[in-house]
Amino acid sequence: MPDIDFDVLTLGETMLRLTPPNHERLEDIRLLEVRIGGAESNAAIALARLGLRVTWVSKLPNNPLGHFTARRIHGHGVDVSHVVWVPTALGRMGLYFIEQGALPRPTRVLYDRAHSAASTLSPTDVDWAILDRVRHVHLTGITPALSATCSDTVSRAVREARARGCTVSFDVNYRGRLWSPNEARLALAPIIAEVDLLLCTEDDARLVFQLEGSAQEMIRALAALNYRQNGMVVLTRGGQGALVWDRTRFYQASAYDVREIDRVGAGDAFAAGFLWGYLAADVQKGLDYGLAMAALKHTIPGDEFLATREDVEAVLQGGLPQTAR
Amino acid sequence: MPDIDFDVLTLGETMLRLTPPNHERLEDIRLLEVRIGGAESNAAIALARLGLRVTWVSKLPNNPLGHFTARRIHGHGVDVSHVVWVPTALGRMGLYFIEQGALPRPTRVLYDRAHSAASTLSPTDVDWAILDRVRHVHLTGITPALSATCSDTVSRAVREARARGCTVSFDVNYRGRLWSPNEARLALAPIIAEVDLLLCTEDDARLVFQLEGSAQEMIRALAALNYRQNGMVVLTRGGQGALVWDRTRFYQASAYDVREIDRVGAGDAFAAGFLWGYLAADVQKGLDYGLAMAALKHTIPGDEFLATREDVEAVLQGGLPQTAR
Amino acid sequence: MPDIDFDVLTLGETMLRLTPPNHERLEDIRLLEVRIGGAESNAAIALARLGLRVTWVSKLPNNPLGHFTARRIHGHGVDVSHVVWVPTALGRMGLYFIEQGALPRPTRVLYDRAHSAASTLSPTDVDWAILDRVRHVHLTGITPALSATCSDTVSRAVREARARGCTVSFDVNYRGRLWSPNEARLALAPIIAEVDLLLCTEDDARLVFQLEGSAQEMIRALAALNYRQNGMVVLTRGGQGALVWDRTRFYQASAYDVREIDRVGAGDAFAAGFLWGYLAADVQKGLDYGLAMAALKHTIPGDEFLATREDVEAVLQGGLPQTAR
Amino acid sequence: MPDIDFDVLTLGETMLRLTPPNHERLEDIRLLEVRIGGAESNAAIALARLGLRVTWVSKLPNNPLGHFTARRIHGHGVDVSHVVWVPTALGRMGLYFIEQGALPRPTRVLYDRAHSAASTLSPTDVDWAILDRVRHVHLTGITPALSATCSDTVSRAVREARARGCTVSFDVNYRGRLWSPNEARLALAPIIAEVDLLLCTEDDARLVFQLEGSAQEMIRALAALNYRQNGMVVLTRGGQGALVWDRTRFYQASAYDVREIDRVGAGDAFAAGFLWGYLAADVQKGLDYGLAMAALKHTIPGDEFLATREDVEAVLQGGLPQTAR
Amino acid sequence: MPDIDFDVLTLGETMLRLTPPNHERLEDIRLLEVRIGGAESNAAIALARLGLRVTWVSKLPNNPLGHFTARRIHGHGVDVSHVVWVPTALGRMGLYFIEQGALPRPTRVLYDRAHSAASTLSPTDVDWAILDRVRHVHLTGITPALSATCSDTVSRAVREARARGCTVSFDVNYRGRLWSPNEARLALAPIIAEVDLLLCTEDDARLVFQLEGSAQEMIRALAALNYRQNGMVVLTRGGQGALVWDRTRFYQASAYDVREIDRVGAGDAFAAGFLWGYLAADVQKGLDYGLAMAALKHTIPGDEFLATREDVEAVLQGGLPQTAR
Amino acid sequence: MPDIDFDVLTLGETMLRLTPPNHERLEDIRLLEVRIGGAESNAAIALARLGLRVTWVSKLPNNPLGHFTARRIHGHGVDVSHVVWVPTALGRMGLYFIEQGALPRPTRVLYDRAHSAASTLSPTDVDWAILDRVRHVHLTGITPALSATCSDTVSRAVREARARGCTVSFDVNYRGRLWSPNEARLALAPIIAEVDLLLCTEDDARLVFQLEGSAQEMIRALAALNYRQNGMVVLTRGGQGALVWDRTRFYQASAYDVREIDRVGAGDAFAAGFLWGYLAADVQKGLDYGLAMAALKHTIPGDEFLATREDVEAVLQGGLPQTAR
Repeated sequence: MPDIDFDVLTLGETMLRLTPPNHERLEDIRLLEVRIGGAESNAAIALARLGLRVTWVSKLPNNPLGHFTARRIHGHGVDVSHVVWVPTALGRMGLYFIEQGALPRPTRVLYDRAHSAASTLSPTDVDWAILDRVRHVHLTGITPALSATCSDTVSRAVREARARGCTVSFDVNYRGRLWSPNEARLALAPIIAEVDLLLCTEDDARLVFQLEGSAQEMIRALAALNYRQNGMVVLTRGGQGALVWDRTRFYQASAYDVREIDRVGAGDAFAAGFLWGYLAADVQKGLDYGLAMAALKHTIPGDEFLATREDVEAVLQGGLPQTAR
Repeated sequence: MPDIDFDVLTLGETMLRLTPPNHERLEDIRLLEVRIGGAESNAAIALARLGLRVTWVSKLPNNPLGHFTARRIHGHGVDVSHVVWVPTALGRMGLYFIEQGALPRPTRVLYDRAHSAASTLSPTDVDWAILDRVRHVHLTGITPALSATCSDTVSRAVREARARGCTVSFDVNYRGRLWSPNEARLALAPIIAEVDLLLCTEDDARLVFQLEGSAQEMIRALAALNYRQNGMVVLTRGGQGALVWDRTRFYQASAYDVREIDRVGAGDAFAAGFLWGYLAADVQKGLDYGLAMAALKHTIPGDEFLATREDVEAVLQGGLPQTAR
Repeated sequence: MPDIDFDVLTLGETMLRLTPPNHERLEDIRLLEVRIGGAESNAAIALARLGLRVTWVSKLPNNPLGHFTARRIHGHGVDVSHVVWVPTALGRMGLYFIEQGALPRPTRVLYDRAHSAASTLSPTDVDWAILDRVRHVHLTGITPALSATCSDTVSRAVREARARGCTVSFDVNYRGRLWSPNEARLALAPIIAEVDLLLCTEDDARLVFQLEGSAQEMIRALAALNYRQNGMVVLTRGGQGALVWDRTRFYQASAYDVREIDRVGAGDAFAAGFLWGYLAADVQKGLDYGLAMAALKHTIPGDEFLATREDVEAVLQGGLPQTAR
Repeated sequence: MPDIDFDVLTLGETMLRLTPPNHERLEDIRLLEVRIGGAESNAAIALARLGLRVTWVSKLPNNPLGHFTARRIHGHGVDVSHVVWVPTALGRMGLYFIEQGALPRPTRVLYDRAHSAASTLSPTDVDWAILDRVRHVHLTGITPALSATCSDTVSRAVREARARGCTVSFDVNYRGRLWSPNEARLALAPIIAEVDLLLCTEDDARLVFQLEGSAQEMIRALAALNYRQNGMVVLTRGGQGALVWDRTRFYQASAYDVREIDRVGAGDAFAAGFLWGYLAADVQKGLDYGLAMAALKHTIPGDEFLATREDVEAVLQGGLPQTAR
Repeated sequence: MPDIDFDVLTLGETMLRLTPPNHERLEDIRLLEVRIGGAESNAAIALARLGLRVTWVSKLPNNPLGHFTARRIHGHGVDVSHVVWVPTALGRMGLYFIEQGALPRPTRVLYDRAHSAASTLSPTDVDWAILDRVRHVHLTGITPALSATCSDTVSRAVREARARGCTVSFDVNYRGRLWSPNEARLALAPIIAEVDLLLCTEDDARLVFQLEGSAQEMIRALAALNYRQNGMVVLTRGGQGALVWDRTRFYQASAYDVREIDRVGAGDAFAAGFLWGYLAADVQKGLDYGLAMAALKHTIPGDEFLATREDVEAVLQGGLPQTAR
Repeated sequence: MPDIDFDVLTLGETMLRLTPPNHERLEDIRLLEVRIGGAESNAAIALARLGLRVTWVSKLPNNPLGHFTARRIHGHGVDVSHVVWVPTALGRMGLYFIEQGALPRPTRVLYDRAHSAASTLSPTDVDWAILDRVRHVHLTGITPALSATCSDTVSRAVREARARGCTVSFDVNYRGRLWSPNEARLALAPIIAEVDLLLCTEDDARLVFQLEGSAQEMIRALAALNYRQNGMVVLTRGGQGALVWDRTRFYQASAYDVREIDRVGAGDAFAAGFLWGYLAADVQKGLDYGLAMAALKHTIPGDEFLATREDVEAVLQGGLPQTAR
């Protein structure tokens, strides 16, 4: 058996995230806080921080915004040596602006991601031989929505991974700004059929896959879309926690009470936490970690999971207290 | 019938609004956030953002602080070409400092508005012929409290408007730092008697007009102070919503649940929303818009109604959700 | 003769301008200062601040970034009612990032303007009848470089203006990131041939038009590219001031010593100042105003000419002193 | 009887307090807000702001960080002329970093206080004759934990105070990062035995003194550790208010509802408020002031009690309301 | 001889100083930096920092802005116990806005000081008996320009000081925004006649006293306006240094080269440095200290002399070097 | 020959670098900018950015400040997997505060580095076998000054490197706050004797090694302290450039004109640039790169070499120009 260099490889787009401070409206900005965000790099960062060896594959413009992005991700311990760099002229840095709401005003996201370097990612950009040294591949439903070449890249990734015996996880992550539920369902079906682990929110199950009924009914219906004998399905239910079905039994756990500072990235933190347990063959631990990490993420400004395993353990043991002492 | 250039003319003082960030105390400041605020320009801005043609009449010092103020207001689409400019020596820019509280500490406002240019506004400053091209005049009870000449200007505005068939609205807006309830009642009585639309908070009804009883009783008592046959009265009741009486029937609606970021200016946002419906001869729509806009304003830092009609519609349809997608 | 509503109409793209503070490198950003910039709106703002009636024609996305831009420009007194608004999906807000250098490190600009709403501007977007009420049209060589439809729009603008007797000025403003000198020369030739006033930097004269020799030789050569009998040419020479030729005589003036805080927009401030004199039929005054305004602009952060006519007069009278007193 | 110069002398360490803004994590900092904090100077500042004459004795490095600290404290009206200044090489400025949490993530404090100048304070640093002109000495259980010389200094302070007839108060303030409960109990016993007023939280009563049972049982048990005939004991119970026993009767009062902005220093604000009543021989007033001041402190960023007596009175009369008017 | 409590008493107005950061224009502000400034408190702070005992007499509004001001000044060690506090309604906090220029744009100051509490200072506000315990009184020509009562207060201060044998210094400090040169000359003549030490800039000598000729001629002419037998005169000459005449001999020294960060307050720093030597009966030391302190002040943001005696000594020994090491 | 994993290994302390913005004085801070700095990690970052494989060995506290530091360094591509992590209690994060001066006020550094985790680094902390896979070791004279164990670690590093045939460079970097010139000379002598490449500033040559005379004389004298047959010596001369002697010939180059934004770290940037050429066996290229990189570093806030090879090349080709275009 060949040596494994990376526990997890993930692949997708990361954008610059620009936010006005303190609930200010984007229309009246004078200062923007700059961070980064992308479902796959969010998960990669969280996994690396838990101690796994992770590599993130993407395409970035060879300019200061691209460098900023790679430096942030690499700083967390994620390998970025397989990132493809292109001249700015061949692909820009995708951006998104977030404006923080307050009841009854919603938090709004303004995407400016068209024509990004990442959206030009194609199967020939990736040296698939790297998968020889990878144990698990994590993908999301955002990438296929970015472009035809991105869609091909995700399909190819699943095939190459399967060919080498890597396990594959897939987080549905439907983005209504990029495609319609119908388009998504059609495009994702062949991918979903082949993965070892499928993660889906209750909302996406309803909207994209038009599922109804109880959580257990939904999760079984999702499982029916997956043709792997042992394919596992995770249904995340927001404030109601999450449910897992491994075709044998159900696992479930409740969500934590949180004071929301910034919930963007909470789904990715959950995915990372669950993967952590899944890769250790401990589904319950995955569920517990996933929910604790999602809760923690709600308290942290930005997409990135800026927390340590000690922070996660503290939540698992009930959370809060400390301060001075 | 002559051409109408402006749907609404409003007239009053706007001040520089200086705030320490993040609940910090004014006594320990190192940075002040600079915005503007004034009941009438707040309403003017909200009305212009909804699509009406609005002009704001006032007096400003011809210095950078005055220019800042006019530029902000004009930016929102409000006409400022009838503003009277005076040398700094003849009138300063009024200021107010806000310190954001938290239970049990109140939000405190420190006014520094005496000797402002706006407080020297007098009937001869205004070219009343402009009212030939105006449909509606909106005034508040703050202006008469500023000075004798300001008081004369408001009375004159009512008279000139009436003479030309413009409708007139008046928002009581009692300011205890400027005069006593007795003084206010005496000064406002002749104005209130003549307006087409009277807006008053329950608190002001009690404090200034010494009214008691149920909301319906109060609103009838307020109506008795107005001698216009079809004079309409709006009673705003904070968390309990608002009530309207058009001498024929009552209209009412509840307030929205809000997470308060900054409530200053919520009354002015309500007034603008109500006027919007009122001018379209749709009282219920006015109530609905008013309450939705007041709710939205609670979520926006600063006095200004930094929101779009789409934002208002979203609140009317229930508010919140969105985020990424 | 029909009534004139606007002294000047200008047409072009305005971008969001994002800058890290204090010479920090873009690669290491956490905060970006947000302003706006575009050659034509820069000139429009400066002209409006001098007291002219100016309208700016462009295309903006109907989102908070577009609203921010229009509000800033309108705040200065520039009419924006002829701006064409498009859904975000049909055109994004162009952006540019500036990183402030220091000897020997250059100030760098990273453009992210492709696919902007403004770059989709086409002749059919503009209601050319507006030119009936306009006296002068100001254009730059940036717009034709943005897209074929933009190029058509500029050509059409010249034709429509000529047809109505509006005078036309044109600032060459070569942008090497958008096209080659050859492409520029070919595209601009027919425009340059027809305008009443041509502004060009010595650098552009050399690079785009491959001119050499003394300033007087260059300016004559530029004049030869223009077929208008009284076509006037202005050659700006950076630190050496500027030279004007009206086919009869030369005018010239020296540049001011400046301490550079931010020189972006200085050329546009010069153009506005010169136009101010030109439209008043006083070429020398135009030169003097232009150079004083360019000098002032060097001292002001951002693209916008945040100064008053009093500030300009103070520079014309020698500048500096004041402080406390 | 000699003249009294100071109503209260207090003695202890003050640190620089460094905080990332807005719930950001310390690990991802780019800016730190700088304030100061120390249990004794917090109390001293609150007392001085209420109008008492207070002197704070400590040891500071003779460098800008030390000067910053002394200037802040002196600004509030606290005498700092008995502070001992040492070269930086002989003792650094203690620091602490605070990271603001949100459910379920705790607020975390990272101390960096070892080897501070204050921790080298020893009995010979203090000119004890100053106590001739002091009425009351306030000490806390933090100081004895800092070093052997600090512990000696506190013991000596009690002795010197007693010898001169000064009353002495002692706030247990157990710090688990500095010593174990056992160590604390042993070291504090002889001090607690001798003081006139003992303040202790329910948590410390349990953890350090291993007390159990009802609040009244606990407070009696604490009183048994004190050998002064009239020794008074205050038990603070967080959200449940506080209880006082003067060996004759119990006084109690409830805590206020608060919206927590920053609770660090609330215990010190309580102590100051209680002392204020105690020194005026009005225990109930002390309790009331203490709880109102603790509530106010929860709404103020930083350790310092940035409030006036008017603010306290407003809370005592129910709190909140105000805003514009 | 009675005990001296204060080496220097000074008396005058201090304002809040509000500045946009980084050369930004006041007209385009979003943030203002808050500091304090006033010629007399500037000098008082500098003197206290050198080690003298100084008291500052003034009138402040009893609100957070007044408290901020007193706290800052007291923080530097200046006694503020003789400040008169008035309700906000009887006198506001004076303000001034500074906008930092760059060649050729001047640094501009916008005063908003009319109706300040300090401008209501009158002879009966001050308990003149305090002068029994004061050695020297320092006054400036700003105070008499504020109001008739302020003018009376300064005249009275000179008289009371003389009656008790305190020495008196007077810094002319002409303010063209407050009065004309003629008014100033007439009002200041009787004061100047009686003081022991007169400080005047060359500009003021020309403008107010219409003096001409060489520096030595000017200083002699100034001395002729002073009737004290040993009256000393200091003529400050900006970049050319300063000249002193003690009626026996001349002292002079050159100014230091500086990189100007903020020159406001440099004159006050000079005055403090000179007084420091003067009170130690060492004129040359005063000159040297004054010029070094004025130079240092140019490098420090704000009015306050935020430097130590070590900093001054370092300048006297040539300045600069250090950094890492 | 075994495989090389790293081109360069370096070893030393990195501190948190805390700076007040904009020339403000440390004594009056409210905000501190947070960065990192350390001579060896500065060089490591610069080398990694040029494309070399670099590992940085150090000891960090296992807390958020340590994580921040490692993440920043790793972000630039420097391996941090050989960093030794210790509990906070066994070693703190060293800090240093920088206050930016302006003529005549020096830039001052306040170190707070005693008792840092890095200062406890000892020979047994390092797995020297790593040197089997390293080509070159870079050390500085700061580390031996930190503690006896640090001194031993540096000596051991030289020995272990020599034993494996790694080349070694040593940058004298005398720190007067850590030891005297005498102590430094004695401690460094045996190290200097053994290295392949010695870098020293003219100032250190004079102060530590008491050398005098021309640059060529100094460099020969330094070479005499080194016993390696081909030992190369670099003498850096600030504004006068640098001189190299390889025992056969001299190489020299001039320094660039710079506008200084922040010169801290310029020496480390030079060292990295020189090493880059040295390791490519091109001394002149090393000199050129070193001087260009030192110049660039002067324009970049912070210690880190936040520039790309393209930036360096641009300086080598003359620097500046660019901006808009």
